[in-house]
Amino acid sequence: MSGILTTPTADRLTAVRITESALATSGVASLAELQAWLAERRRTDVAAVERVPLDDLERWHTDPGTGNIVHDTGKFFRIEGLSAQVGGAAVPAWTQPVVNQPEIGILGILAKEFDGILHFLMQAKNEPGNFDGVEISPTVQATRSNYTQVHRGNPVPYLEYFRDSGSGSGRAAGRHRVVADVLQSEQGAWFFQKRNRNIVVETEEDVEVLDGFAWFTLGQIHLLLARDAVVNMDARTVLSCLPFSGAGLAASFPFPGQDFRNALLRSCSDDAGGLLSTGAILSWITETRTRQEVRAGTVPLRDVEGWVRAGGTVSHESGLFFNVMGISVRAGHREIGSWCQPMVEPIGIGVNAFLVKRVDGVLHALVHARVQPGYLDVTELAPTVQATPGNYSWLPAAARPRFLDEVLAAPPEAIRYDSLLSEEGGRFYHARNRYLVIETDPGHAEDPGADFRWLTLHQLVGLLRHSHYVNVEARSLIACLHSLSGAAG
Amino acid sequence: MSGILTTPTADRLTAVRITESALATSGVASLAELQAWLAERRRTDVAAVERVPLDDLERWHTDPGTGNIVHDTGKFFRIEGLSAQVGGAAVPAWTQPVVNQPEIGILGILAKEFDGILHFLMQAKNEPGNFDGVEISPTVQATRSNYTQVHRGNPVPYLEYFRDSGSGSGRAAGRHRVVADVLQSEQGAWFFQKRNRNIVVETEEDVEVLDGFAWFTLGQIHLLLARDAVVNMDARTVLSCLPFSGAGLAASFPFPGQDFRNALLRSCSDDAGGLLSTGAILSWITETRTRQEVRAGTVPLRDVEGWVRAGGTVSHESGLFFNVMGISVRAGHREIGSWCQPMVEPIGIGVNAFLVKRVDGVLHALVHARVQPGYLDVTELAPTVQATPGNYSWLPAAARPRFLDEVLAAPPEAIRYDSLLSEEGGRFYHARNRYLVIETDPGHAEDPGADFRWLTLHQLVGLLRHSHYVNVEARSLIACLHSLSGAAG
Repeated sequence: MSGILTTPTADRLTAVRITESALATSGVASLAELQAWLAERRRTDVAAVERVPLDDLERWHTDPGTGNIVHDTGKFFRIEGLSAQVGGAAVPAWTQPVVNQPEIGILGILAKEFDGILHFLMQAKNEPGNFDGVEISPTVQATRSNYTQVHRGNPVPYLEYFRDSGSGSGRAAGRHRVVADVLQSEQGAWFFQKRNRNIVVETEEDVEVLDGFAWFTLGQIHLLLARDAVVNMDARTVLSCLPFSGAGLAASFPFPGQDFRNALLRSCSDDAGGLLSTGAILSWITETRTRQEVRAGTVPLRDVEGWVRAGGTVSHESGLFFNVMGISVRAGHREIGSWCQPMVEPIGIGVNAFLVKRVDGVLHALVHARVQPGYLDVTELAPTVQATPGNYSWLPAAARPRFLDEVLAAPPEAIRYDSLLSEEGGRFYHARNRYLVIETDPGHAEDPGADFRWLTLHQLVGLLRHSHYVNVEARSLIACLHSLSGAAG
Repeated sequence: MSGILTTPTADRLTAVRITESALATSGVASLAELQAWLAERRRTDVAAVERVPLDDLERWHTDPGTGNIVHDTGKFFRIEGLSAQVGGAAVPAWTQPVVNQPEIGILGILAKEFDGILHFLMQAKNEPGNFDGVEISPTVQATRSNYTQVHRGNPVPYLEYFRDSGSGSGRAAGRHRVVADVLQSEQGAWFFQKRNRNIVVETEEDVEVLDGFAWFTLGQIHLLLARDAVVNMDARTVLSCLPFSGAGLAASFPFPGQDFRNALLRSCSDDAGGLLSTGAILSWITETRTRQEVRAGTVPLRDVEGWVRAGGTVSHESGLFFNVMGISVRAGHREIGSWCQPMVEPIGIGVNAFLVKRVDGVLHALVHARVQPGYLDVTELAPTVQATPGNYSWLPAAARPRFLDEVLAAPPEAIRYDSLLSEEGGRFYHARNRYLVIETDPGHAEDPGADFRWLTLHQLVGLLRHSHYVNVEARSLIACLHSLSGAAG
């Protein structure tokens, strides 16, 4: 309780240091060394994953009263039913299976400065649902069951930096400093009110680098983010919560005048204005939450309609949306060597796309205030388009998302980012979405309607200091957009 | 979509105009005129409220399957049961009756400048649960059932300013301007996840002043807030969400050097530092939400344990906490002339108190990150003490709130604010709490423990732009603290 801290200066300094790290493509290791390390991890850290009928999952059972799929301990997560009513929607009411995992996990990245540049300690982690094996993940990616040792695996390395961050206790001037720390939601289509703690802690201590971990600059992570399925969802969401400032950089890194990166860096800057004031954005979000009447709650899995449990899986009668299926895993590098679990297996590849445009030289992204029954607070800001195109063959025509056809028909020269990224491989089996950033002309969608608004990146990152504002798909795209500010752009 | 708005300047200007209004004790009407008007309303707008057994409430019935008390239309609100588990708490699990009202209502105040001073259009409103009849309430105080005309009463006056605020649609430069607009929670002890839209809109239009309405400066409202039961809860919560800045005022209104008001105005200013940075405060809130495992959900009212339905009410077997009872109302000035409804009737008068202290000349309030099962997001910041002392005779000794004894024993010279204010009279019968601000010495509670932190008023008002941060009792106290900056101080 020594002195008075003035927030804005300290925060701005951190944001500039993070942006400097984003521009650094060389760190304690070169990119080539990190790539070789990752390739080696992919070769050695392999898991044998096999499909198993839901009825045969060891240590899991189907509750006779509800049909829910639960672990024998009652812990971890469970597959239940969800009943949703969304007043006025094209599909105003439905039921579906849902993953209910009420405990809050930790997604933590440890940061440390080497030679004046911030580095981030990333883990090469294999999850059973990953399409391509090992991906780059946060330093710590642990459910509460993990870190409280419910399943008696090995202790979670580096956990101590995030469990006793000392953030609020007046000890912030110690050897660890919290850079970002916020609860964020996860996939509202498959999870019921799931949230994780997204936290970044900077340390000045010496840190032992364990097997399977390596220090990256943000620029190095960004270069890998340009590739398919290398940086996992958990890493992307934590990275999106980093303060990120273009202040001063647009001048000191003078890209040619009309370069996309100039508009991007200006969009990240706290002194660039946006089309809307902060007050107008908050009021619009409040309005979307008041206008829509949403009721959602869990129901017994056996009461969901239109879904069939047969052949060891739960599937929709149309064959669309997703399946609930089971896997068995044998792995060498996990806390637990082998286990079984149910998973959600999406049908088809989704598209998550931001339309962006420059307004007075400042990039704006078109966000969608989207209702998903898994959100705690009615709506969250989603990408312009977040959809699996195949699903709409079954749904009423009015349900077809606005801007979907425009995104699918975007000409190559308008595409600023395009990668096939995986969703969380601990709960989702081979879930991949195509992430796109598409630039449109400044006059496009000037009045985008009640559910859409054009926001700057600085405004989105400001919202990301708080819960309930930006959904996980939009957070991934924000990380992708930030990645375009440096060499990856 | 004309130009670029820069937020901070516009927001700061509004905050200064609001503070100027707080210093104005004379407006389009004098305080004496407003008091005479209020006295006249209290004389003429009277309602006959009678206790009625729950079994005899017209148009309400007890659901035979659940024991829940519901309206015959299924709308408005219902009395259900709540089951709560709070891991590690002194009372780790309990059930109780709860008011479930999932619709989001509007609490709106219309603002307009007269002779360069912002005025607020307040309503003299009688609610059946009020202890003293008419109180000062927002321009609009309407449930969704009210404003969508479910009960076919008269239209809600002035509603159009708040339903089509045009805030986010790029029409913000029109004749109405949103000053504040945020969903805020209500009493977490009696409501299940109840929230209202707190909204302030400034207009430049001519406004017809209807019977029962009058324009007040903020300073005039503040003078009435010093009295018992004049400014109602709905008005207090909306007022707390106003941007409020002490910037520049500490200099231009030079109270004597050690005056409490100087420290208060500095605490409201965006250039005064606090003991904690914004990042540290947000991280602490995240930590409290991660640490506590809370499960809460509605259950059938007949399944609550320790509560008895007898003699036409539902009461706790100890006689403590609250009763659920019924009333019949005959009123002349309401949308509907007469009706019946169930209400929550608290036993005893609660204490809601902030301990405050000066740190380097800046006032700080000690907030408590409090779990209440009615919150959507685990914890909200509450007063230092929020308790009904009589209830603790029944609860385990460990449940006795920290700082309660200190607050109850505060010497008169330390008390900066002390009034008996009512809670929402539409759902609560004669619910009154004593609101206190008590100044302690700068060295007090320097390390207040995991659940408490010292925050400035500017930091609290910053959090109030967002949902889920500050509970309704703390919001009332923030309005009370703001009231001390002017003549009422």
